[in-house]
Amino acid sequence: MAVLGIDIGGTKTIVAVADDGGRIIGQTRIDTPRDQGTAVVLTEIESALRRLMDETHTSQVQAIGIGCGGPLDRERGAILTAPNLPGWENLPLVDHFARAFGAPAYLDNDVTLAALGEACEGAGRGVDHFAYFNIGTGIGGGIIIDGRVYRGCGNAGEFGHQVILPDGPPCLCGRHGCLESLASGTSIARIARQLVILCPDSLILRLAGDGESISAAHVAQAAREDDPVAMNIMSETGTYLGLGVANVISVLNPRKVILGGGVITGAGDLLLDAIRETVRERAMPPLADDVEIVPAALGDQAGLIGAVYLAEMGNG
Amino acid sequence: MAVLGIDIGGTKTIVAVADDGGRIIGQTRIDTPRDQGTAVVLTEIESALRRLMDETHTSQVQAIGIGCGGPLDRERGAILTAPNLPGWENLPLVDHFARAFGAPAYLDNDVTLAALGEACEGAGRGVDHFAYFNIGTGIGGGIIIDGRVYRGCGNAGEFGHQVILPDGPPCLCGRHGCLESLASGTSIARIARQLVILCPDSLILRLAGDGESISAAHVAQAAREDDPVAMNIMSETGTYLGLGVANVISVLNPRKVILGGGVITGAGDLLLDAIRETVRERAMPPLADDVEIVPAALGDQAGLIGAVYLAEMGNG
Repeated sequence: MAVLGIDIGGTKTIVAVADDGGRIIGQTRIDTPRDQGTAVVLTEIESALRRLMDETHTSQVQAIGIGCGGPLDRERGAILTAPNLPGWENLPLVDHFARAFGAPAYLDNDVTLAALGEACEGAGRGVDHFAYFNIGTGIGGGIIIDGRVYRGCGNAGEFGHQVILPDGPPCLCGRHGCLESLASGTSIARIARQLVILCPDSLILRLAGDGESISAAHVAQAAREDDPVAMNIMSETGTYLGLGVANVISVLNPRKVILGGGVITGAGDLLLDAIRETVRERAMPPLADDVEIVPAALGDQAGLIGAVYLAEMGNG
Repeated sequence: MAVLGIDIGGTKTIVAVADDGGRIIGQTRIDTPRDQGTAVVLTEIESALRRLMDETHTSQVQAIGIGCGGPLDRERGAILTAPNLPGWENLPLVDHFARAFGAPAYLDNDVTLAALGEACEGAGRGVDHFAYFNIGTGIGGGIIIDGRVYRGCGNAGEFGHQVILPDGPPCLCGRHGCLESLASGTSIARIARQLVILCPDSLILRLAGDGESISAAHVAQAAREDDPVAMNIMSETGTYLGLGVANVISVLNPRKVILGGGVITGAGDLLLDAIRETVRERAMPPLADDVEIVPAALGDQAGLIGAVYLAEMGNG
């Protein structure tokens, strides 16, 4: 008996087969065929899993865990809308995979599952309560209390949509001044594209080739090579992230804050130091002293590992 | 057998005797002799309880629950510092009352206990998870999950010290731009004192007599009587409170937000409407739709009722 894990991202999807102890015995990564319609997406994920089952000599599936972005209806097992996956409205992921593999399937938010993955095998192991920030294209979060996911009414941990600057820039969510509008990978790239017009000598532009191609990764690389424009952007980003982290600390008083996602991986200590400094300055002393702010341990495997745990725990 | 409840405030202290079913059978209110040294405070609270025990024919005490403001060390049962009670450093409340009445005593934050009180007998009854805001002289909070207090490392729910305006006014906590610095009773009175200098015709000034005497209650009363300066202050206060509530909703996705404390009691719908409107505008739709924002039900009894429950539950 085996369990299947599926972590669906906007550009890549990772699928895995795990043994009944939850150990991943095979995994593969495919491009998410996001522009080819939802039927193609479901078929390609299913095919990738069947190939993987063949390779790992797996015939029977015990349960399936699925992670995906966007507001979900967990009870119906469907994506409601996925900002990064246009057209994926009301996609019944759970029904499809449950029927395809003849086993119960469970769906959860990909960042929530990354938090669960970090709780089970990563930087949150043995930590009774922590907050997990995923800082990538957008900013998501997850809350673990007593080793379990805290969901509130279903979508707790929307750390990216706390308001940090009441009169701040517009956010993709339709509001403005959200943390995501100020400090996500998308926001880092947007600010850099504006600044290189004024500072065309910036290393950022040389790394990216042209303004349109600038990504958060170029800004992080330029900052590591001491480019002043890039260092400025990263410092401001770190300050905003620090304010968001400080506010979550004021609410939850967690033992740890774990920071994951592409922007953190790319920028490393540059951002971590700025975040820690802002938290020291802006969070109340007993709460600021209680918390350890650490990078995530599992990289882009966290969501997949969380999906496997979700399958094992049956909606945990 | 009976349990004792003690709710120590900066100006008033309420004590109660409850039967072994948790029903309060007698209570009394004394001035907190905050300026006469801690020995006097402890003695007067003890005397009030002994008189109450006589009146209710109570001879044996099963447990004691104590609520007090300020960062606490719950394990040691002591107040660390209480901003509203100068000189109360390291006051061993638990030891004192446990010895005095020969029963185990338990200490918790007064706002946390008000949240527990609302959970057991007030607006949070039967609600699986909610956030409680206390908006008075300062702004505190409490979090209830599955009917129990969520404490994090001990001081979760510091809603008043989330940063709402990064460049905002100084806060008593030593930082700046905290919700408490923008929307507490203290802040309402401070803003009114400044504005009546520019607008000496404001009803606020007539109600208070002179600028120095202005309190949040005067501003609320003037706003109810359509004084434009007061209405402006209340509207801005409501917007800031709404931002704070929206941010807590983004983190916790609670079923309810319960609003208590003197400022809410005094201003009623004036503030509630502004808070609800801001939440609709600034919190993400699925989370904003999940939550009901309601006034607290127990008034200034919430903390006392929570203290009795704390005693019954033995540290809850």
